[in-house]
Amino acid sequence: MNKLADTIQKKPWLGWLLFLGTLGAVFLLGLFATSISERRLESKKSFEWITPIGEQESDSAVWGKNFPREYDSWKATQDTSFKSKYNGSTMIDMLEINPRLVVLWAGYGFSKDYNQGRGHYYSVTDIRNTLRTDETAPGTCWTCKSSNVPRLMNHLGVADFYKDTWMHLGPEITNAIGCLDCHDPKTLNLRISRPALVEAFQRQGNDIKKATHQEMRSLVCAQCHIEYYFKDDGKYLTLPWDRGTTVEAMEAYYDEYQFKDFTHKLSRTPIVKPQHPDWETFQLGIHAQRGLACADCHMPYRSEGGVKFSNHKVQSPLNNIANTCLVCHRESEETLRNSVYERQDKISELRTRAEDLLVRAHIEAKTAWDLGATTQEMEPILAFIRKAQWRWDFVAASHGASFHAPLESARILGNAIEQAGQARLSLVRVLSKHGKTDAVALPDISTKAKAQSYLGLDMPSLKKKKEAFRQETLPQWENKAN
Amino acid sequence: MNKLADTIQKKPWLGWLLFLGTLGAVFLLGLFATSISERRLESKKSFEWITPIGEQESDSAVWGKNFPREYDSWKATQDTSFKSKYNGSTMIDMLEINPRLVVLWAGYGFSKDYNQGRGHYYSVTDIRNTLRTDETAPGTCWTCKSSNVPRLMNHLGVADFYKDTWMHLGPEITNAIGCLDCHDPKTLNLRISRPALVEAFQRQGNDIKKATHQEMRSLVCAQCHIEYYFKDDGKYLTLPWDRGTTVEAMEAYYDEYQFKDFTHKLSRTPIVKPQHPDWETFQLGIHAQRGLACADCHMPYRSEGGVKFSNHKVQSPLNNIANTCLVCHRESEETLRNSVYERQDKISELRTRAEDLLVRAHIEAKTAWDLGATTQEMEPILAFIRKAQWRWDFVAASHGASFHAPLESARILGNAIEQAGQARLSLVRVLSKHGKTDAVALPDISTKAKAQSYLGLDMPSLKKKKEAFRQETLPQWENKAN
Repeated sequence: MNKLADTIQKKPWLGWLLFLGTLGAVFLLGLFATSISERRLESKKSFEWITPIGEQESDSAVWGKNFPREYDSWKATQDTSFKSKYNGSTMIDMLEINPRLVVLWAGYGFSKDYNQGRGHYYSVTDIRNTLRTDETAPGTCWTCKSSNVPRLMNHLGVADFYKDTWMHLGPEITNAIGCLDCHDPKTLNLRISRPALVEAFQRQGNDIKKATHQEMRSLVCAQCHIEYYFKDDGKYLTLPWDRGTTVEAMEAYYDEYQFKDFTHKLSRTPIVKPQHPDWETFQLGIHAQRGLACADCHMPYRSEGGVKFSNHKVQSPLNNIANTCLVCHRESEETLRNSVYERQDKISELRTRAEDLLVRAHIEAKTAWDLGATTQEMEPILAFIRKAQWRWDFVAASHGASFHAPLESARILGNAIEQAGQARLSLVRVLSKHGKTDAVALPDISTKAKAQSYLGLDMPSLKKKKEAFRQETLPQWENKAN
Repeated sequence: MNKLADTIQKKPWLGWLLFLGTLGAVFLLGLFATSISERRLESKKSFEWITPIGEQESDSAVWGKNFPREYDSWKATQDTSFKSKYNGSTMIDMLEINPRLVVLWAGYGFSKDYNQGRGHYYSVTDIRNTLRTDETAPGTCWTCKSSNVPRLMNHLGVADFYKDTWMHLGPEITNAIGCLDCHDPKTLNLRISRPALVEAFQRQGNDIKKATHQEMRSLVCAQCHIEYYFKDDGKYLTLPWDRGTTVEAMEAYYDEYQFKDFTHKLSRTPIVKPQHPDWETFQLGIHAQRGLACADCHMPYRSEGGVKFSNHKVQSPLNNIANTCLVCHRESEETLRNSVYERQDKISELRTRAEDLLVRAHIEAKTAWDLGATTQEMEPILAFIRKAQWRWDFVAASHGASFHAPLESARILGNAIEQAGQARLSLVRVLSKHGKTDAVALPDISTKAKAQSYLGLDMPSLKKKKEAFRQETLPQWENKAN
């Protein structure tokens, strides 16, 4: 440095050069810093309160005044177009494309009506319109459908909310699943608003408040995307997790309580209908094992004007591979899509085999009853059917199971296939004892209509009743709400 | 630069500084280059011929003089210690730990003796000693066991090699699987030495010579680690790939030829015994789909003194996670090991279910035959058993299937379970028609000895015969060889 000083002393223009160069560099640095702080400011803006949010604010539009990006993306759940091999369009009629389901759920609402789920935006619309809801439904049915629920639960008390009727609570339910369901209106932190999940954690000796942020990015979804049942006459929403969350652990739980959702109309099997054990299945797959949360793929981060936010258009990652899979994987979109399709195809194959065997088992059991089989003869058979159907439906009902945990899904279906086979094997013996030595012929259940007619479902009258509800009751509900 | 020249002209010591600095930098660069060229030289050394290798050189020790690292690591296949949940020690007696296998292979050599495979080093030793080889075995049995085979095939002609007897060729077979089996002795390039694979490619209209180096790093393994059969009386080693390499495609091939490896001793089912469709299964898993070759995980690259070479101690990657899985995956060894174990556990569960059903099906079929069932009654049943056993054994026989392609393995086993169930269902009807209306009791097959005794296998005499072979024939073979 002394030599440099020496040189500069002898050549003053060199010093000027250095001085001006430094000035230029500092100026550029200043520009850069301004750009950063501008972006910071912009990103802070989204946390500047334009409108305060009430503690029970169920209208997501009010939240949206403060959080336009999250709100806009939430609103985008209106768009139900879907890139998937099995879900090409909107709200597929699942009974139409797979009439076996009608027989498998004979005696339960799902055999009347079961459509592909749509975005959160439609949660209230769709539950109002399905043939599965009527005056017999309890208040519990609203639990997962609306951001009005936290206020109602607070007002009525949780147990009384569940005990109420779906019809009586109807006018109070106006908003679809929205901001309040997962966020604290003061801090915006993720928050569990539904008691069933908190209670399930408590019964296992865990405190859900200790969950990390990354865990919460799955647990807020797990408020609804889990297996649950309506306990006892109070229809208290309960998660069957006390022995664990695997298919076997939950089965053991239900068996201990001798719980059933319905008695199968044909086979008279006491059936547990899995809801959508999505979170439970996800835990058993590689993505959860490597630390991912639901939101990582279903609500990926997005940047707009320097603001990073979670895309609240909850949807299949297949609709958005670039911002989900490609964050970690280096393959082309097409390669990754085909990898998903391959998993879906293999699970679909096993699922169809299980369904085919189970349909036959139900119909053969009905034949055995008709021929005078005794309860004693039928009990072990119905136990196998119950086991097989629980397993089959666990995979069938779990959204994305074939991707979330393909091997576990295959294992479960392999067991379902075995148990359905065992049921049918015993049925051959019982049928033969009652004079039926050849195969039981299958009725024509090749379409939804034929399968429903085989079950004696009076679909025109069910549809008429729902139409009356839409014409007469719904306007009253909306009047009361306004 | 003009200004710098100006300055230097006015201050000559500055020029000297620049000159000496450059000198120093050039000197350091020279040192670095020397180090690189030394390492290059060292790495070239392994390709300097110390001893020429003959065109049919079957003694790997001769190759080893030129390639000591590859040879040393090949010799290390003597070490058969194994880190795996299911393979804790050396050469497990598979029939002892799973006596169901004895029943499943009744009527075939595998029910006499079936041990866990050992390293390439033991290939000749183990085939000599197994109870499965005797004077009835054809020459074909040697094909995959020794680096003497290329010379013999060249000398005798391929078809005549196969047609020869195992006993007659015995004295010629002295070297275990080694260098010549996969390498060209002139260029050291990977080379296919066995005709069956080349012929299978040809029949599909493909030229194996066009394979890339990375493909060859699997295809040299696929010379033996594939499904094959001995065609017709000439026992011509043939790959059943003409319709494809999936479990269904190969089944269709065998069905077309009405091929069977043996008739099951109990059920009289014409059974195809899969060998080890390792390459075929691997193709259906994620690692092959993402471009990996067998050698990537079973012969990972290693560096010694600047020389990079493939570790020829072919073994399970679980024995060497640091140099295999961890090349791509960022998890801990324990996490990765547990991920493998989880896959193995799930497949093992389905496999056991399939085995249990199949054992019962074979025994129930025997009972039906004993009671006078007709061929017409039994044919559809045996067709189901054949299908189920082909699928079960496809997974059971394929080394590492539960890791290479877990979901495909589960899919195959799910189908096996279904088909075995179908067989048993039909058996109940046939049995009942012939007076047997209750369940067929299982014999005691709880140990290998009990299962073998149930089949009427005279194990002491088989062992005595093999002992005589060891005492009398083997020394003669070795005399002739020397």
